[in-house]
Amino acid sequence: MNEMLINMGKNAKEAETVLRALSTNKKNEVLSAVAGQLVKHTDMLIKANETDVENGRKNHMPESLVDRLMLTKERIDGMAEGLRQLVELEDPVGEVIGMKKRPNGLLIGQKRVPLGVIGIIYEARPNVTADAFGLCFKTGNAVILKGGSDAIYSNQAIVECIRECLKEHGVTENAVQLIEDTSRETAAEFMKMNQYVDVLIPRGGKGLIQAVVNQSTIPVIETGTGNCHIYVDETADLSMAADIIMNAKTQRVGVCNACESLLVHSSVKDDLLPVLAERLKEKHVEMRADQEAMALMPGAVPATEEDWGTEYLDYILSIKIVYSVDEAISHINRYNTGHSEAIITNNYTNAQKFLDEVDAAAVYVNASTRFTDGYEFGYGAEIGISTQKLHARGPMGLLALTTTKYIIYGNGQIRP
Amino acid sequence: MNEMLINMGKNAKEAETVLRALSTNKKNEVLSAVAGQLVKHTDMLIKANETDVENGRKNHMPESLVDRLMLTKERIDGMAEGLRQLVELEDPVGEVIGMKKRPNGLLIGQKRVPLGVIGIIYEARPNVTADAFGLCFKTGNAVILKGGSDAIYSNQAIVECIRECLKEHGVTENAVQLIEDTSRETAAEFMKMNQYVDVLIPRGGKGLIQAVVNQSTIPVIETGTGNCHIYVDETADLSMAADIIMNAKTQRVGVCNACESLLVHSSVKDDLLPVLAERLKEKHVEMRADQEAMALMPGAVPATEEDWGTEYLDYILSIKIVYSVDEAISHINRYNTGHSEAIITNNYTNAQKFLDEVDAAAVYVNASTRFTDGYEFGYGAEIGISTQKLHARGPMGLLALTTTKYIIYGNGQIRP
Repeated sequence: MNEMLINMGKNAKEAETVLRALSTNKKNEVLSAVAGQLVKHTDMLIKANETDVENGRKNHMPESLVDRLMLTKERIDGMAEGLRQLVELEDPVGEVIGMKKRPNGLLIGQKRVPLGVIGIIYEARPNVTADAFGLCFKTGNAVILKGGSDAIYSNQAIVECIRECLKEHGVTENAVQLIEDTSRETAAEFMKMNQYVDVLIPRGGKGLIQAVVNQSTIPVIETGTGNCHIYVDETADLSMAADIIMNAKTQRVGVCNACESLLVHSSVKDDLLPVLAERLKEKHVEMRADQEAMALMPGAVPATEEDWGTEYLDYILSIKIVYSVDEAISHINRYNTGHSEAIITNNYTNAQKFLDEVDAAAVYVNASTRFTDGYEFGYGAEIGISTQKLHARGPMGLLALTTTKYIIYGNGQIRP
Repeated sequence: MNEMLINMGKNAKEAETVLRALSTNKKNEVLSAVAGQLVKHTDMLIKANETDVENGRKNHMPESLVDRLMLTKERIDGMAEGLRQLVELEDPVGEVIGMKKRPNGLLIGQKRVPLGVIGIIYEARPNVTADAFGLCFKTGNAVILKGGSDAIYSNQAIVECIRECLKEHGVTENAVQLIEDTSRETAAEFMKMNQYVDVLIPRGGKGLIQAVVNQSTIPVIETGTGNCHIYVDETADLSMAADIIMNAKTQRVGVCNACESLLVHSSVKDDLLPVLAERLKEKHVEMRADQEAMALMPGAVPATEEDWGTEYLDYILSIKIVYSVDEAISHINRYNTGHSEAIITNNYTNAQKFLDEVDAAAVYVNASTRFTDGYEFGYGAEIGISTQKLHARGPMGLLALTTTKYIIYGNGQIRP
């Protein structure tokens, strides 16, 4: 294997043992200092970023991506603010859960500890660099970053700032390392470093996440795409339903918890859909509907089979008429991505049924799917939203970056 | 992909929705009935097993493996007893954890739910077939089994018994399916069925587990090998130390929580090692020691670098002298497999330091490593002992076969 990667792995392992033992006070001191350091070096960061932006434009990067790549004074302040917010959060490391005495006198408990070494693979969003460092550092983990090649100068500058600050505070610089070789080969090797890396977290679009899931032998926490549904039941308050649909579809369209597909019980379609169509048109939302819905929604176009399974991330909504809550649930369980699903209803049995039977990370009654978010759930920070079932499901706060170990106090017990 | 596998995947997904909703009473009724069914069909099961055993002997299977493969009346009773024990255990599914009201009135909680579809890949131990079904069924999961080719007739017979019983009780037979094609190609395809299988659990030796980790794109729960250490500190009660070492090394040698390596503080080596050597010799334990230890242990042979990293699973112990608790911890963190580690000490600071700094699933003070076990920890059942850090670490009880989903009760909330 690539010698550079092996060295980084060894450095991270060494850093791990130091970080595991850092006090919360020390970690908070460093996070505040890094926040200050980033702000202090705003000009230098913007300058490094300009090189990336120029190169991006030279390589015909779409303007939407250039926008994500670009650092401004406000964005650097935002990165710093993110780190300062982490200072305020409770440190999950060190808590001992469920310590119990066994009949033989052994005292067994589970202590919350850092995962160890975390790998983050992401695209050309330099803010992830500071954010990922902060989350990993607060939870006592060493982090190895593999950012997109398009942001390499920005990432180098940010990581340099952080490492300088770590050094000034007497903490190992290898708490954060950046893989500067952004080739695909190196990325592929990185994903097989099980000996050194405890978990990989891809942050980015569907393509990136799928590539990591397929190539990695290291355990992956999959953060995911959201083909989120809202089902309007027979007994729904239709004005509440329309407000929730408009919010979930249009409050922000490019996010994974936005609504992509609407299911409407046939008995309320006449009252809901014409009014809703007006409101959707006002917001320039394209409607792709099945035949029955189309008849009630002027301007709608026919939905194809493909639409039911598509996360648009755009001003588009698919609409389907169903005849029962069971049909709605079975449609959702067939086409969803396990993210967020909502029922609008006033029927107790159907609400409970929907909560029980829909298979997703977050299931709502009478609320917008847009709430699936670490901040909205009260975690104060978010690593991502897991759509897989192992380790963490749904919005992941700091806890998701920790594991436990059993600690056992004995007084000479042997196994009979 | 293999059409047979796709069909099994679809069947499992369908079964999943049924199993998720089964009451604990119904699940217990079926588990008891399956236990009875296995006992009732003892003769048939033994007959099927005889074919496997004959084939094994024809293929020169080592007698130790033939022993693991063989079914007897007692072993079938044992399988049934295992299922009956599951009936007594609390069903983790359905519990709602930490339901809290957010400032906007949303009521958010985490409900414990089955993982969904679990794949188990194992070797020629037919008892795993009934055991894995029982654990998965009790937790509301559908299971797809891929057993070793050497046990195919036994596995078919057991699975047939179970499916018959499921049918009689009006529960989908596809709660358990066996992959009857035991080729490597089919196994490799099975490990990439992310669309249908939520998690893979390999049960068997190091080679099997490594192959699954390397090939699977499905999340894997790695149950692991144990290169477990005991460190005897300066202040240890040496008679307690010797008893614990003898227990951890010899009470059962072929298991992952047995002690493989002994570290002794130099200041107690003279008092401990000669006495210990006598006791080890009585039990025919081969001693592989560093130079200093060898001088005090008649009959010991020199340890090589390779010994420090070896899980013997045999009557062999490696022995090394260290000069501090820090040296012991750093040796352990370098060579261990993250399973179980123990310190024997009477020094408060060193005990806490060892618990804090040793990186393993279970860390002991003054007790035998042999206690790392689901039954000993009070879980009543064990899927295996996880040596990875994601999802579950250490002995895994029924909880490890579940995940959570967020359920959210609203009354019209939209995101501002």
